[in-house]
Amino acid sequence: MAESVNERHRVKLIHGGDIYSAREQLSRRENAPDILDFSANINPLGLPEGVKQAIIKSMDNYNAYPDPLCRELIYNLSRFERVPAHWLRCGNGAADLIYRLVYAQKPKKAMVLAPTFAEYEEALNTVSCQVVHYELQAGNAFRLDENFLEVLPQVSGLDMLFLCNPNNPTGQLIPREIIVEILQCCRALGILCVIDECFNDFLEEPQKYSAKEYLQEYDNLFILRAFTKIYAMAGIRLGHCISSNEKLLEDLTKAGQPWSVSIVAQIAGIQAMQEKDYIIRTKALLYEERAYLVRSLGDLGINVIASIANYIFIRWPFNTPKPLHEMLFAKGILIRNCDNYYGLSLGYYRICIRKHEDNAALIAALKSLAVQ
Amino acid sequence: MAESVNERHRVKLIHGGDIYSAREQLSRRENAPDILDFSANINPLGLPEGVKQAIIKSMDNYNAYPDPLCRELIYNLSRFERVPAHWLRCGNGAADLIYRLVYAQKPKKAMVLAPTFAEYEEALNTVSCQVVHYELQAGNAFRLDENFLEVLPQVSGLDMLFLCNPNNPTGQLIPREIIVEILQCCRALGILCVIDECFNDFLEEPQKYSAKEYLQEYDNLFILRAFTKIYAMAGIRLGHCISSNEKLLEDLTKAGQPWSVSIVAQIAGIQAMQEKDYIIRTKALLYEERAYLVRSLGDLGINVIASIANYIFIRWPFNTPKPLHEMLFAKGILIRNCDNYYGLSLGYYRICIRKHEDNAALIAALKSLAVQ
Repeated sequence: MAESVNERHRVKLIHGGDIYSAREQLSRRENAPDILDFSANINPLGLPEGVKQAIIKSMDNYNAYPDPLCRELIYNLSRFERVPAHWLRCGNGAADLIYRLVYAQKPKKAMVLAPTFAEYEEALNTVSCQVVHYELQAGNAFRLDENFLEVLPQVSGLDMLFLCNPNNPTGQLIPREIIVEILQCCRALGILCVIDECFNDFLEEPQKYSAKEYLQEYDNLFILRAFTKIYAMAGIRLGHCISSNEKLLEDLTKAGQPWSVSIVAQIAGIQAMQEKDYIIRTKALLYEERAYLVRSLGDLGINVIASIANYIFIRWPFNTPKPLHEMLFAKGILIRNCDNYYGLSLGYYRICIRKHEDNAALIAALKSLAVQ
Repeated sequence: MAESVNERHRVKLIHGGDIYSAREQLSRRENAPDILDFSANINPLGLPEGVKQAIIKSMDNYNAYPDPLCRELIYNLSRFERVPAHWLRCGNGAADLIYRLVYAQKPKKAMVLAPTFAEYEEALNTVSCQVVHYELQAGNAFRLDENFLEVLPQVSGLDMLFLCNPNNPTGQLIPREIIVEILQCCRALGILCVIDECFNDFLEEPQKYSAKEYLQEYDNLFILRAFTKIYAMAGIRLGHCISSNEKLLEDLTKAGQPWSVSIVAQIAGIQAMQEKDYIIRTKALLYEERAYLVRSLGDLGINVIASIANYIFIRWPFNTPKPLHEMLFAKGILIRNCDNYYGLSLGYYRICIRKHEDNAALIAALKSLAVQ
C-alpha cells in the first residue's frame, strides 16, 4: 500500500527550505553531496542550547493538552515585547496567524506587495478575496517609496493591506515616516494594515524599524512576529501577533482550534527569550558574514540588491547554460530561486547568510560558475 | 505592562484538561493539593520512552522548516493504517483537521450529535454553517440507534454530518451495520460523513469498530484519527485523516498553512508507531482499571452509563450541597463536568481511566462525598 507521497501529491511546494525534496532528488545519484541550505532564512547558529535543554526537561509534561491561552508564554512575551499581554496572541508559527487573521476577517479585497512572501496571497485565496498587487520596481531596487501613498487611496474597496518589513525576498526596509502615513491613510479608509516583522530581529537596530510604537494609536495595525527564524525554531513552530484591537484578536482566536501552540513551542519560546547572549552572537556573526558575502559577490560582478537582514537578495548577471539554482543544486547547494514570486523573473535569488565556512563554500561555487 | 492573561482574555475555556486554570486557582490557597487530572482523556502511561528518545535525538533538525508533505511520517502511517498514502493527511492535532475540513468545504448545514465533542460545532460556526443537533436520549443511555436512520433523510439540505465513534463524552459505540446504512444514506443525499475515531485505539477490538474498510467504497467518508490520546502526545499535537476522496484532501491541504505539523510531531509520530509493547501495556492497564472503576463506582451507587474506551461516563446520583466537580476540585481532583455539552445538564461527568493509585484516590474521594 505504501507509495511515494511526493508522486501522488499534487500540492506544489513553493517555498525555500524544502530540503526534503532536495534529499529525495539527490539521493537517487551516486556520490550524492551533503545539502547546504541557503534557501530558508534561519539563524545559522541553530536552536539555542538553553532551548534544547528546556525541551528535554519538560518532556514529562507533553502528555497534557497545551494551555490554549499560552499564559506563561504570553506573560513573558508581554515583558519582552513591552506591550500589554492582552495585545498578544501566539500561533503555530506566524503562518498560522496569517490564515487565522484572514479567516476571522474574510476580506473582500486586499493589497499585497509584489514581490513578497507568498502565504499572504495563498491565505487570501482561501476566502475568495480579490488580491491587488502593488508592483515594486526593479529600477528602484524594489523599494517601497512615497509613490505607494499616492496609489493606495486610489484603489477602491480595499479592506486589508499586507506589508512585510524588511520585505521578503527583497530585503528592503520601509522607512518609518512612510509607515506612519500608510497607517493614517489605512485608518481613514477602513483598511487593516498587517505588517509582517518576522525578520525585524535580524536588523542592526530592530526598534528603529518596528511599528510597535504605533499600536496604541492605530487599532487598524496588526503586527506579525516570529520565533521561527531568529531562534532557529522553524521545526518547532512559534509565531505571535500584536494589536491593540481586542475585538480583532478575539475573532482571530476563534478562527481555529484552541490548542494550536504545542507545549514544546510554549516551553521553547519562554526559554528563547532568555537567550540574550545568543542574540549578541547572532548579530556579530551576521555583521561579519554579511560584509564578507556582499564584498565577495561584488568581486564576482554579482549585483547585490539588498542585504539588511539575514538574507541577501541578488540578481545573477551571467548568461549560463543553466539557471544558477540548478547548477548549484548539482553541487548540493540550495538557494532560493525567486522566479515563482509574483513580480520577479528568472535570475533573482535569495541567499540566507550562514556560518563563514558555508558562505565561503557558496562563494567558491559561485566563482566556478561565474567564470564559465 | 505584564498582567494576568486570564483576566483580560474573554475566550471561554470549554474543554477538559485545563490544568492551567486549575493550577492558577489552587495556587492562591495555602497547602494547595497536587492536581490529579481525570478531565482529559490521555493514556495514563504518558509519552512512550522511545518517543522521548527520538525527540532528543532529532534536536539538531528542529532549526529547519518541517516537511509540508510529512513524507516519512505518511509513508509509515500508510503501512500502519493499511491505507494508500494518498488517502492520508496529517494535522496539528485532529482539531486542526476539523477546522481545515470545514474551511475547505464551507458547509451550509451540518448535523452533529448532542452531546458530542464541542469543536465540530465551534468549527462549523466559523463559516456561519447552520448546525442541527441530533439529540441522543438519556433513556437510551445516549446510544445512536436505528431511529437516526429515519431522521437523517428528513433533514433537508444537509451537506455534512459529524459522528464520533466511540462518542465523546458518552463512550457509546455506533454499531457497524448502522454505520453502513448511514454512509449509504449520506451518499445518496450528497452528505459528507465525518467519523471521528480518535478513541478507537482504546477499544478492545479497534478494527471491529473502525469505518476504514468502507473508505474505498464511500468517497463521502472522512475519518479522523489522532496520536494525541493513545500515545499521550496531546502537548506535541498530531492527528491524521483518511479519505479516498482526493479532491477533498487537496482542498483541505490548501485550507491552511503548509507547515502545520512540526518536526517534533513528525518525529514523535514515526517513533510512536513502533511502540507495540506500549499499546499492549495500555490495553492491559485499561482492562484492569476499567473493571476496577466500574465495580467501585457501582458499589458507591453511581450509575455508569458507558465505559468502553479510556473514559467512563457517569451520572452523579446524590443531592450534594455543591456539584461533584466542585467538591472534587477542592481536593485537587479534576473530572470533566459535562454540563456545558449541548444535550446534557449538571450531574453528568466524564472520568478518564488512570493508573491504579490515582483511580483508587478518586474512588476514595468519591466515597467520602457519596456518603455525605
